[in-house]
Amino acid sequence: MFDKVLIANRGEIALRVVRTCQEMGIRTVAVHSTADRDSAVVRLADEAVQIGPPAPRQSYLSAAAIVEAALMTGARAIHPGYGFLSEDPDFAEICAANDLVFIGPPPDVIAKLGDKAVARELMTAAGLPLLPGSTRTIDSANEALELADRLGFPVIIKAAAGGGGRGMAVVRERADLLPAYQRTRATAQAVFGDSRVYVERYCDRARHVEVQILADTYGNVVHLGERDCSVQRRHQKLIEETPAPGLSRAMMADVADAAVRGARAIGYVGAGTFEFLVDDQGFYFMEINCRIQVEHPVTEMVTGVDIVREQLLVAAGRPLSVSQGDVEPRGVSVECRINAEDPERDFAPTPGLLTRFAPPAGPFVRVDTHAAPGYRITPYYDSLLAKLVVWGPDREQALDRMRRALAEFEIAGGGVRTTSELLARVIDAPGFRNAEHTTGFLEQWLAPVS
Amino acid sequence: MFDKVLIANRGEIALRVVRTCQEMGIRTVAVHSTADRDSAVVRLADEAVQIGPPAPRQSYLSAAAIVEAALMTGARAIHPGYGFLSEDPDFAEICAANDLVFIGPPPDVIAKLGDKAVARELMTAAGLPLLPGSTRTIDSANEALELADRLGFPVIIKAAAGGGGRGMAVVRERADLLPAYQRTRATAQAVFGDSRVYVERYCDRARHVEVQILADTYGNVVHLGERDCSVQRRHQKLIEETPAPGLSRAMMADVADAAVRGARAIGYVGAGTFEFLVDDQGFYFMEINCRIQVEHPVTEMVTGVDIVREQLLVAAGRPLSVSQGDVEPRGVSVECRINAEDPERDFAPTPGLLTRFAPPAGPFVRVDTHAAPGYRITPYYDSLLAKLVVWGPDREQALDRMRRALAEFEIAGGGVRTTSELLARVIDAPGFRNAEHTTGFLEQWLAPVS
Repeated sequence: MFDKVLIANRGEIALRVVRTCQEMGIRTVAVHSTADRDSAVVRLADEAVQIGPPAPRQSYLSAAAIVEAALMTGARAIHPGYGFLSEDPDFAEICAANDLVFIGPPPDVIAKLGDKAVARELMTAAGLPLLPGSTRTIDSANEALELADRLGFPVIIKAAAGGGGRGMAVVRERADLLPAYQRTRATAQAVFGDSRVYVERYCDRARHVEVQILADTYGNVVHLGERDCSVQRRHQKLIEETPAPGLSRAMMADVADAAVRGARAIGYVGAGTFEFLVDDQGFYFMEINCRIQVEHPVTEMVTGVDIVREQLLVAAGRPLSVSQGDVEPRGVSVECRINAEDPERDFAPTPGLLTRFAPPAGPFVRVDTHAAPGYRITPYYDSLLAKLVVWGPDREQALDRMRRALAEFEIAGGGVRTTSELLARVIDAPGFRNAEHTTGFLEQWLAPVS
Repeated sequence: MFDKVLIANRGEIALRVVRTCQEMGIRTVAVHSTADRDSAVVRLADEAVQIGPPAPRQSYLSAAAIVEAALMTGARAIHPGYGFLSEDPDFAEICAANDLVFIGPPPDVIAKLGDKAVARELMTAAGLPLLPGSTRTIDSANEALELADRLGFPVIIKAAAGGGGRGMAVVRERADLLPAYQRTRATAQAVFGDSRVYVERYCDRARHVEVQILADTYGNVVHLGERDCSVQRRHQKLIEETPAPGLSRAMMADVADAAVRGARAIGYVGAGTFEFLVDDQGFYFMEINCRIQVEHPVTEMVTGVDIVREQLLVAAGRPLSVSQGDVEPRGVSVECRINAEDPERDFAPTPGLLTRFAPPAGPFVRVDTHAAPGYRITPYYDSLLAKLVVWGPDREQALDRMRRALAEFEIAGGGVRTTSELLARVIDAPGFRNAEHTTGFLEQWLAPVS
């Protein structure tokens, strides 16, 4: 096993990775921007290296600064967390060139899957069902219009290099297609440095279901069941749970098998997530995330598998510690994302100083957070403040526990607002309690009654 | 289900009970002494009633004050937690006389089992193996000496009304018997108001193993497996875990069956714990605790059963939510008791103001605590500051997680010392890691090398 691992991330996921490293006897190096110099992970890790100013491009996105920190501290491997450099094939290449293990899939796999149009082709070849749409990226507005006409509206335009819910546009009327095409290309260029887009039929009444995959270098591929992430706004997940409520177990088994088949077909290695849309007709492959997912804890709660530990084992050339037969999900787990955002001002981030921060506790409650009283929420990074995760023997008990835990969570600070109260109302909203919700649920529910 | 429940306790267990009540939609009443007026449970409960000055006899042991608080607030039931009035049959009677549900076994069962000599007789009749010893309480020093001669030394003298590790004396030499007999009677009179004692053969190299029982008013009796509580000092548990390491699963199944048989024989109702000694020869019944146990979370972690919820269901006249077939323990859970005590000064309590208190977090870690920064540890109550509970798929991973979590736990305050560092050393002590330890382990390990 590695002697020392560098964590190329910040916030709750950096803490999460450090904790598993410590349990495995691995020394840890935290890297941080000047804005994060007093962060919890800096205190918890064995070593900390300041890599740059707050702006991500000069710190958490600076491959050079991170590789230098690894070489300087003698770290043997780099865990990229999620976001930042976690799905950047060039960074994985640079790590390899510097004799550092990148904890993730091989660079060529990341590159292929990072281009969503290519991923669609590969998964079609592997026999996975896809939503009707482009077989490759779209080169002109006319081509987009022709394809949309053939598919029928609504359609969705997606950046080939996109991720994290950015660079997408749902188009419901033919007249809106051209402006949406131009806008999505512009956003894709600005955010991902790659303007290519593709077009799919848009499923209005569907669920977002994803499958957690683990694969090692010995050809073992295991799935840890599915997660339902249908409570979203602007393609950003707010509530995730497992198992997917109200969907047939037989179909979920088929979805999981499809993900395993897809992972085998592309030689996947490490932890990854296969995302699908599920509607009354069936399920459709969407994309693959080549990294640990924000919502991975719900899977850990029901399976007892520490996903970061499996990532480290695989990266060190060891086999997975679990076989498919060992994986027996138990009960229900739900995660709520407590973001420092104001739901009443269109979820605008609310930076500020936390004067009070007391997470809930008690049986079957887990809170992953980097925040604490005195923590300053800066405007530089995403607004995730805490992941509140609960478990229960059934969905009703899990949601009752979530209601209690949300009510117990105390967060206060000048100007700071969070998603907590909104989440508490969603938890008890009939459409969600009865599992009748689809990905459009939250936005419809939030829309003012006119 | 009850509309409102009063929690007749303080500290972490009061919080623990409030949380489950809230999840079940039950309103809660906290009672507190003047010393606890700023406590977490006072903030968390729906209502709080101050019942007296710090001294337990005038507050948490005052049946009159507690019943008055229940009647005043309209609570329908009283959860006694552990310690204080939890095993007092008179209190259970007073509750019944005031039309309040005592959340625990019926008063006559508590009365029988509270007299350990009677409990021995009942369990002998139910066919449970006992350590050789008195068939009833001992009336004279001479009788004690005759019995000890017949049993062979070492023997243990125990208060019939004893509990919580108090009122016990191990006698290794014949010459020490009479003084120990007198001393134990005096302690028993002073602490429990009942000087009666009994004598048993003392097992020097044994494990303390206990079985968690749940029983409802419909004749359903379910066990949730065993807990090993062999890391003790002066009969006070410091580390508890499940399953019992290094003991045969076949014998543990027999122990659990014996507990179920015993529970049926006495008409047990509610949550209870059957304590046994286990050595190379077999297992021997010791006593029954008629209440929730401090160490119940390890059982919750491996079974997924919320034991307080089952207590509430049973007390409300509902059946248990689980049958024996539903109970499938998974993995290993370990609890460390973080006490505000100085291990270097013979575990003397260390009251004081907590200036820093940051419990660990992360996957499969649970911390039950009433403490927080600014919390004042008073000298009036027991020294338990936090229960640190971890889970792992196997014992090695659970203990590695415990090591990490103990290291992460930050506690500081003027004059405050804790058991945390000692526990961290025990977790890695070979005798414990290899599961070769017996109840004498900690005291032998602590003894200075001479």
